[in-house]
Amino acid sequence: MDYNAAALAMHEKNRGKLTVQSLVPVRDRDALSTAYTPGVAEPCRHIAKNPEDVYKYTLKGRTVAVVTNGTAVLGLGNIGPEAGLPVMEGKCALFKEFGGVDAFPICLNASTKEEVVTAVKAIAPTFGGINLEDIRSPECFAIEEELERDLDIPVFHDDQHGTAIIVLAGVLNALKVVGKDIRSIRVVQNGPGAAGTAIIRMLQTAGVQDIIAVDEHGILVPGRSAGLEGHKAALAERTNPRRVSGGLAEAIRGADLFIGTSVAGALTPEMAASMAPDAIVFAMANPNPEIMPDAAKAAGVRVVGTGRSDFPNQVNNVLAFPGIFKGALSVRARDINDEMKLAAAHALAALIPDAELSEENILPKAFDPRVADAVAGAVAKAARESGVARV
Amino acid sequence: MDYNAAALAMHEKNRGKLTVQSLVPVRDRDALSTAYTPGVAEPCRHIAKNPEDVYKYTLKGRTVAVVTNGTAVLGLGNIGPEAGLPVMEGKCALFKEFGGVDAFPICLNASTKEEVVTAVKAIAPTFGGINLEDIRSPECFAIEEELERDLDIPVFHDDQHGTAIIVLAGVLNALKVVGKDIRSIRVVQNGPGAAGTAIIRMLQTAGVQDIIAVDEHGILVPGRSAGLEGHKAALAERTNPRRVSGGLAEAIRGADLFIGTSVAGALTPEMAASMAPDAIVFAMANPNPEIMPDAAKAAGVRVVGTGRSDFPNQVNNVLAFPGIFKGALSVRARDINDEMKLAAAHALAALIPDAELSEENILPKAFDPRVADAVAGAVAKAARESGVARV
Repeated sequence: MDYNAAALAMHEKNRGKLTVQSLVPVRDRDALSTAYTPGVAEPCRHIAKNPEDVYKYTLKGRTVAVVTNGTAVLGLGNIGPEAGLPVMEGKCALFKEFGGVDAFPICLNASTKEEVVTAVKAIAPTFGGINLEDIRSPECFAIEEELERDLDIPVFHDDQHGTAIIVLAGVLNALKVVGKDIRSIRVVQNGPGAAGTAIIRMLQTAGVQDIIAVDEHGILVPGRSAGLEGHKAALAERTNPRRVSGGLAEAIRGADLFIGTSVAGALTPEMAASMAPDAIVFAMANPNPEIMPDAAKAAGVRVVGTGRSDFPNQVNNVLAFPGIFKGALSVRARDINDEMKLAAAHALAALIPDAELSEENILPKAFDPRVADAVAGAVAKAARESGVARV
Repeated sequence: MDYNAAALAMHEKNRGKLTVQSLVPVRDRDALSTAYTPGVAEPCRHIAKNPEDVYKYTLKGRTVAVVTNGTAVLGLGNIGPEAGLPVMEGKCALFKEFGGVDAFPICLNASTKEEVVTAVKAIAPTFGGINLEDIRSPECFAIEEELERDLDIPVFHDDQHGTAIIVLAGVLNALKVVGKDIRSIRVVQNGPGAAGTAIIRMLQTAGVQDIIAVDEHGILVPGRSAGLEGHKAALAERTNPRRVSGGLAEAIRGADLFIGTSVAGALTPEMAASMAPDAIVFAMANPNPEIMPDAAKAAGVRVVGTGRSDFPNQVNNVLAFPGIFKGALSVRARDINDEMKLAAAHALAALIPDAELSEENILPKAFDPRVADAVAGAVAKAARESGVARV
C-alpha cells in the first residue's frame, strides 16, 4: 500500500481528520436556553464559586491539548506549526480511537521556549492535560519542566516519556527472556535527544546503574573536549559511572542493552558482535533502524526491537499515551509523575504473560484492545498512591 | 421550564457539551499508517512546501476558535476563564448545530490586552477564524484591532459585531414598517460598551447621520466634564453632530430610534413618549430590557425589539455568527470587513419579504432553517467582491 498517496487523498477528502460535535441537539428554544443563555449561566456561577466544578460541568476533565510548535515534526525537522497540523490531528484521532480521550490540536506560532510556555499557560484553563509533541531538543526539556512546575494539570512530552515508557516495558520483558537483572546490566544509549534522554532517566528510575550515553561527538563524559552543550553536561554527570571515554565502539563493548534513537546504520554488525552474550537491541531510528534485525541477530543479539510495524517488538507510542492520559484524567491528576510512568511501563509489560514471552514477543501489539485500559488503570492507581490525584 | 436546573443537570451528565471525533476509523495497520506515521508525513511535506495547502489537508479551513478571557461573561462579569467555559462550549455547539462550523473553546488565562493578543496570535495556525467572546470593554476594541491587523485569518468579536449586524437588520426592516429613511433619522444609543459602540459604527456605515451616544454620565460630547476615558473620546468626536448635551432625557427627545445596551428600566415611559412619531426601540438589556415592550407601546412606540425570546423581534446572536463564519471560511477569507457585515445584515433583513413585514415581525426567528445559508452566501459574495477572499 502506498501510504503517502493514500494519506494525501484521505486528508484532502476529509479536510483533516477531526471534527467537533455537539453532545446536545439544539433544535428548539428549550434546548437553546439550556445549552446557552439563560441556562448556561448556572454552571458558570457554580464554577465561579467552586473552581473544581469546571471538571464537573465542562469538557476540561476529559480533554487534552496536543501542542506543538512544529520545530521537530516526525523526521521532517522544523517545518513550522501549520505543516505540523496533520500530525497533531492524527495524534488527536489516536487519543480518541485508542483511549476514548477527547483531544484537540494546538499548533503554536511560537519558536522560543518562553513563547511556548506563555502560550500553553494561557490556554490551560480549557484542558485537563497537555500533551507536548514534536518540539525540538533541548528546548523541550525546559518547556516541559516549567509547565509542569507552574500548571496544575499534567504536562507530558510524548516524544520523551511515551517512548521511554514503552522502551522500559520492552526492556523489562526482554530481560526476563534473557534472564538478566536490570540492576546489573550495562546499557548504551545512542542519540540522547528528547527520547534518548527520557529513556536514560526512565531506565535509571527503574534500577539501571550502568548506562552510557553517546552522541555524534562520542561518549558523554564530564569535561569532554568536544563540549557538552545544553542538557548534556548534566547527563554526563549522572551517567557513565565507569567514566568510559571514546566512541560508540568503545561504549558498546560488553554492553547488555543498546538503545538507539539516532540514525540508520549507527550500530554496525561488528559493534553488535562486541556486546555481551544474550544482548538486547532497541534500534528505533525511523524509517531505517540503527541496525536491521536480521543483521543484529546474525551478530549474536538475542532480542531486537524497532520502531517499525513490519518487524517484531515494535516500540509504538500508541501503546502508551492514550492510556496514560485516560488514567490521569480519570483521577483529575495534577501531574504525570515518575510513579505513574513506571506503573504504565509495568502494566504494558504485564500484558504478555511469562508463558508467552519470547525473543519475538516482548511488547503488546498496537491494536491489542486491552492496552489502553490496562495502562489507564495502573496510571490512575499510581496517581492516587503518589498523591497527585484530585479525586 | 427551569432552565437553571435543566442546564446544570445536562452539563453534569455530559461533562460539558462538546466532543472531538475522528473522521477516520483507526482499526488496522493501514488506517494507522495513513492517519498517522508514516503516511501523515506526506500532507506535512505539501504544507511545508506550499503554506496554503493547510486549508486543503487539515481542519483549519473549517474550524473556528471561540476565545475568551472570561472578563465579561454574559451578565456575570469578570468570572475568569474556567467559569466562562460553559458559555464557550455552548457557543461552539451553536456554531456546529446552526452553521455546520467546527468550533473549539479556548479560555485564556490572560487578563491584559497584551496577554490576550499574544495568546491568540500563538494559537492562530490551527484555526480558520477567531471568534472573540465575552471580553470586557474597552480592552476588547484594541484586542480585536491588533489581531485583525496582524493575523491573516478573520477575527470577529461577536459581542460587538454579531449584535450590531442583527440590530442593523432589524432597523432596516423596522424603518420599512414605519416608512422612514435611514439617512434622515435621529438615533440614540444608550450604553456604548462593546455592543453599543459596534452598533453605532455599523449604523453609521449603513447611512445613519445623526446618532447620539449616552453613557452613565450623560450624552457623549467632546470636552464633557465627566471625562471621556478610553474609546469614548473618539466616539464623542464621530457622533452627536448637533452637539447636544445633557442626559438621556435630552438626547431622546424627538429621536426616531432608541438602541439600548444598558440596564433594565433605563428608558422611562416618559422618555419613550418624548420620541418622534412612529418611533422604534431596541431594548436589549438582559434579562430585563430598558423598557418592557408593552410600556413602550403604551408610550406610542411602534416597533420594539428586545434580547428575549418571549417577545417579538428578538435580537439573537445565533442569527449571525454561524452564517458569518460559514461564509468567511468558505472563501478562506482573510478578514470579516464592513462589506461582509453589511451584507450579512441585508441578507438577514431580506429573509422577511415586504408582504410579511410588520411591527411584530422584523427579524427572522432563531430556528428559521434558511438563516445560516442566506448569511453565509451573502458574506462569501461580499468577501470576494471586497478582495479578502483567498478562493
